Formats: sequence, C-alpha cells, structure tokens
Amino acid sequence: MKSSAHSAATFASPVGKFSESEILQAFVPLLEEHNRWAGAQPGNLVEMTVGPGDDCSVLSMPASQLVFTTDTQTEGQDFRRQWNSGDTTTGYDVGWKAATQNLADVVSMGAEPITLLVSLSTPPDIPLQWLKDFARGLTDSCRKNGAERCSISGGDLGASTEISVTVTAVGRCAGAPLLRSGAQVGDVVAIAGELGTAAAGFAVMEYSQGFSIDDLENRPGHILRAVQAQQRPQTPMRNALQAVGVAHAMMDISDGPVRDAQRIAQASKVSIHLETELFRADIAQLEPVADWLTARSQTQEFSLSTATRWVLSGGENHGMLACFPADTPLPKGFRAVGRCERTHPDSVFVDGKVPSDKGWDHFLAE
Amino acid sequence: MKSSAHSAATFASPVGKFSESEILQAFVPLLEEHNRWAGAQPGNLVEMTVGPGDDCSVLSMPASQLVFTTDTQTEGQDFRRQWNSGDTTTGYDVGWKAATQNLADVVSMGAEPITLLVSLSTPPDIPLQWLKDFARGLTDSCRKNGAERCSISGGDLGASTEISVTVTAVGRCAGAPLLRSGAQVGDVVAIAGELGTAAAGFAVMEYSQGFSIDDLENRPGHILRAVQAQQRPQTPMRNALQAVGVAHAMMDISDGPVRDAQRIAQASKVSIHLETELFRADIAQLEPVADWLTARSQTQEFSLSTATRWVLSGGENHGMLACFPADTPLPKGFRAVGRCERTHPDSVFVDGKVPSDKGWDHFLAE
Repeated sequence: MKSSAHSAATFASPVGKFSESEILQAFVPLLEEHNRWAGAQPGNLVEMTVGPGDDCSVLSMPASQLVFTTDTQTEGQDFRRQWNSGDTTTGYDVGWKAATQNLADVVSMGAEPITLLVSLSTPPDIPLQWLKDFARGLTDSCRKNGAERCSISGGDLGASTEISVTVTAVGRCAGAPLLRSGAQVGDVVAIAGELGTAAAGFAVMEYSQGFSIDDLENRPGHILRAVQAQQRPQTPMRNALQAVGVAHAMMDISDGPVRDAQRIAQASKVSIHLETELFRADIAQLEPVADWLTARSQTQEFSLSTATRWVLSGGENHGMLACFPADTPLPKGFRAVGRCERTHPDSVFVDGKVPSDKGWDHFLAE
Repeated sequence: MKSSAHSAATFASPVGKFSESEILQAFVPLLEEHNRWAGAQPGNLVEMTVGPGDDCSVLSMPASQLVFTTDTQTEGQDFRRQWNSGDTTTGYDVGWKAATQNLADVVSMGAEPITLLVSLSTPPDIPLQWLKDFARGLTDSCRKNGAERCSISGGDLGASTEISVTVTAVGRCAGAPLLRSGAQVGDVVAIAGELGTAAAGFAVMEYSQGFSIDDLENRPGHILRAVQAQQRPQTPMRNALQAVGVAHAMMDISDGPVRDAQRIAQASKVSIHLETELFRADIAQLEPVADWLTARSQTQEFSLSTATRWVLSGGENHGMLACFPADTPLPKGFRAVGRCERTHPDSVFVDGKVPSDKGWDHFLAE
C-alpha cells in the first residue's frame, strides 16, 4: 500500500490490522523527509551515508567526543492516553516528549544532538494515525528545540500490552563536555528554561476531573500552558550550548532544582545555596494554577505553597542547571538562583536551611 | 547499601522493596568492571572519557564511520519467564539475548561493536538477583561473542507491567560498511553460524509440557542444545568481520535464510537461488528434535519436514547471510548455500521453485 492510498478511514484503523510494511509506509517517509532536511542544514559535520533499511544506519563523522544517553517512557508510569481531567496524550505528545527529554540530556553535556534511535512497542489497538503523529512529534521536537541537524537514524517497532518508547540520543561535543563534577566554590548557580510548569500540568491532568471537551479548551490560559508544558516540554538548547566554554558544570533538570543541585554538589564536592526569593517569578506564575486546583480537586490538597514545591522540586521541564564563574556575565537565557560554597556534609541549602532526608516535601511541611 | 551488604536473602527480595540507588548498587559495579576490562583490550581506538553517572556518557574516537541499531525484547512477545515446557528464561538469558541480537546487527555491517546502551523496564516483583543476572548476561554476551572491546555506556531503569529491554548498539566500521544492496550476479551465497536451532528451541519450550525440573535436565542433548540456542544465541562475529573487504553484501539472519535472502535480492536487484541439499547437515541435525516433539505435543503437528522449515525459515539464531565473488575462497566459517543470478520478478528460489506470497510455510505445504 502506498502512502497516497492511505485514506482518513485507513488511518483510524488499529495497527493490528496492517502488515509491518504497511505500518512502516505510514510514517517512515516522514522520517526520511526529516533526515534529508536535517542533513542539508548548514554547518553539518555528520553525514548519514546509509539510512534506515539495512541492519544498521551509518553516520560518517570527523574525530569526535560523542555523548550517548537513553531513556524510556512507559504508559501508566510516565503518561496516560486518557487523564482524569479529560486531557489526552496523543502520539504526537509521546513522540515530542520522548525526543525532548533525550535531547535535553545531550545538550546538558554541551553537545549538539546528531541522531536519535527510537524503539516503539505498542498494543495492536492504537490507530495507524497515532504512529504518524508520533513520528511528527519526534521530528518537530528536533526542529523546534533547535536540534535541526539531528537525524532519526534507526528504530524498532514491536507489540506490547502498554505503549513503551525508548529513545537513544547521540551528540557531538562542541568543546570539552560539561559535567556535574566541575562546579567550584564561588560559582553562581543559574537556571535556563521553565521551572515547575510541567509538574503543575501533571497535577492539573491527574487531580482535576469532570471536564467535557469544550470545558477543557475553555480553561484559563495558565492552566492550558501548564498542561502544554507537561505534554510538550521545551529544552533551552541554544542557551545550553552558549554555556560551553563558560560554565564549570551543567545538567538537565529532571527532578527539580533542589534534588539536581544536590547531584552537582555531591559530584563537585561543593555545597549549593539556593534562595527562594530568586525563584519568586517562577512561583508567582504558578500560584494561580494551585489556586485553581484548590477549588477543583477532591483527592489532593493544594495551597499557595504548592507552587513553591512545583518550582523547587518539580521535574520534567528539562531546563538546565549550571554553575558559572562569578566574575563572568551569565550567558543569555540563564538566571541566577544561588551560589556554590565550601563543602558541607549537607550539600544543598534552601534559604540557609537543610532540606530533610525525606526530601523537599517534608521540608516544606516543617 | 553497599554491594558487600547485599546478602543472598537480599537478592531474593523483589526490586520494588529497594531504593533506586540500592538497585543500581546491585549491578552497576558489574558493568563498571566490564567497562574497565573492555577499555584495556589491545587495539582499542575508542576511549570512554566519561562513564555512566552524568547525563550522558562520553566516548572519544578518531574519524569514523559509525553504525547504529536498536532493538526491543518484550516479555510475552519475545520470551516468557516461564515456558509451557517448564523451562525458564532468566535475567541472564534476557540480557544475553538482548545484547547478542544487537551485536549481530552491528557485525553484519562489517563493524566492530564499540558500545551498548540498555534500557530496562520491569515489574516491581522481579528479584534483585534478576537484575544482577541481567547485567552479567549483557557483559558475557559481549565477551563470549567476541566483542571484547564493547562497553556498556549507558542505561535507564524504569517500572512497567511486563519486562521490556531495549538495547542500542554502536559500532565502528573496519572498512566500507557491508550492505544488503551490494550482491552481484554470479556471487556465491553463503552462511555463517547455526540455522534453525533457535526456532527448534522455541518449539520445544512452547509445545512440549509437563516436565519436572529433573526431567528438564534429563532431556536428550539435541533438545538441550536447541533450548540453549533459543535462549542464548551466538553470533559468528569473528567470521563476519573476516568477510569485510571480501563479501559484496551481508546481513544478520533474523527471519530465516529464505526471507532474508529475499531482502538482499530485492536490495541488490538480483535473484537468489538456494539449494535445500546445501542445508542438509543443518536439517539432519534437527530431525531428531522434530521427531522428539512429534511424540510430545498435543497442540501442534510436527514431522520431519518441520526440521527443513526451522532451517530455512527459522529466525533468532543471528547467523550471517553474505554474498561473495565466485572466484574467491569463502572466509573461514562460511558455507555456500546458493548463488545470485539475474533479476527475476520473483527474487528467491528454493530448488528452482518460487516460495508463494504467503511465505515459506505455505510453500512447504504445496
């Protein structure tokens, strides 16, 4: 079956009704088109000499420091197709997020993403359109996050009872790789990208309910933006790459600034002091979301301090946490949130206090 | 918890009872030890400058043609923890096979495996020991398949309702990559590695039943060997790399020689003629397995022709199918099974006959 022969009705049919080659024909051309486009971008030093179709793809490149990472998203653990709120996570969302979180890991090392490999396992009941949307989500994440030269060089498609997506990302360092272990006493700790909005979006989708489709679209703008941040996070790739050669240490914020700062502190043998006041704008932006949820959730309690928790401990936004020498201007897109001091057995402090062993939630409740 | 504090009782406990750092402590040291060993092998041109622990690992390498592949195994689709026969698939088996099938894709391109990335999703009820066995299966596959310089440079661990393992493999071409599209009219078609034994092993585990643990071990040697081939296939890596610079085309046999020959024929625009007589030794070796199953299966019919089907259409052994110029001696480990001729609309022939569109099973039934 040729792509042109796929009608709208065809795309609504479950993948279990198609042969493997029919399924591939529905989305592989989208990936091939993307790969041609990515390969033609100026400044490309990596050439895809053999594309998908053989046992492996082949990329030709100059002497390199390459970075590698892999990450899996599983339905029920990392997303739901249908949320309590009525929101849905589409194939596009799953593809976007799977790509974005791996791109974030690559750029946090100070590397440019050069290729993704994608393995998708799905139940046979998902519509063929889902796969096409998934492929588009992958390629749009590359383009819109700034990874225009990143190809999708391989994949695997299989059956399972729950949707599972594994993306492996490969990048090429622009200079020396940026590690967690390079922070120095006296460094300014800074952040690029949004904080807390993805956690707020999760709370909206998980803990509010009873909306019709029309209601969903008519929610206030700050609610819609939070949902969007959870479903389609954006990683500040250009900012991250501007930190190369300037920052002493950098990492992707996957578990919130407090916990991730702890990782840098421990790897670098410094203590990190964060100031809530420096997160004030991020927190203020989410207070209306917490307020909105307070009136709508029967199962969880929300208060204004929830917004603080989202910002300081919420993950999945895929911003950057970096440490810069104090005497250098911060690169564009970074804002200071704290500083590195001499090592202390408790390596992260918020407003001078030690978060308890049980984590930030417990600390807030003190 | 330190590794030394893990007692036998600890390892029998389900992973759901441990923190992420305790789980990692159970098997990451095994991988680190392997990586040190792999990095110290003579002739290594790839250096792991940053190991797992940062957002990405970093490998430093000279100008390269790199090959990339990814493949997922899902419980229930690709293996069972408990088979009808009473056989079990252990963590070691899952790790071994996930590594092997990706190593096979790399070496079939004429490339040396340089690193694997491994993502594992499991239900919380698997014992901690399972993870340790899994890691050992990964590293043993690298060592015993001949990929001694292949590191395990990254991974991801998550929860799911069924075990799912995705391995991404990266290799470095020794010369020009070997593709499916290079076969020429007049070439000898040849095979390295076992054929049919993995399919026979699957049939034994799926279609025989009612064995006690003692009975399982006392099955005849040809039965045990077939089960072993299904659980821990071996890919002929050294033979494959000896084909570089000699073979015109090569691929990993993942779906049996007939279907995979079709792929080379179509990519190379030749027709491939296979001779059953040249598979005689492979078939003869499996006739006792078919015979044994005939007396033991209530749900499937087996006959001596089943052995022919296993050999010609059985996958998962991960041998090599290659096309060599007729005037050159075959490299060690390869045996001739056919020849390439001028293109014909039906591109694969077995004993001069065309397998039907419905595949080899239907062809056999004619």
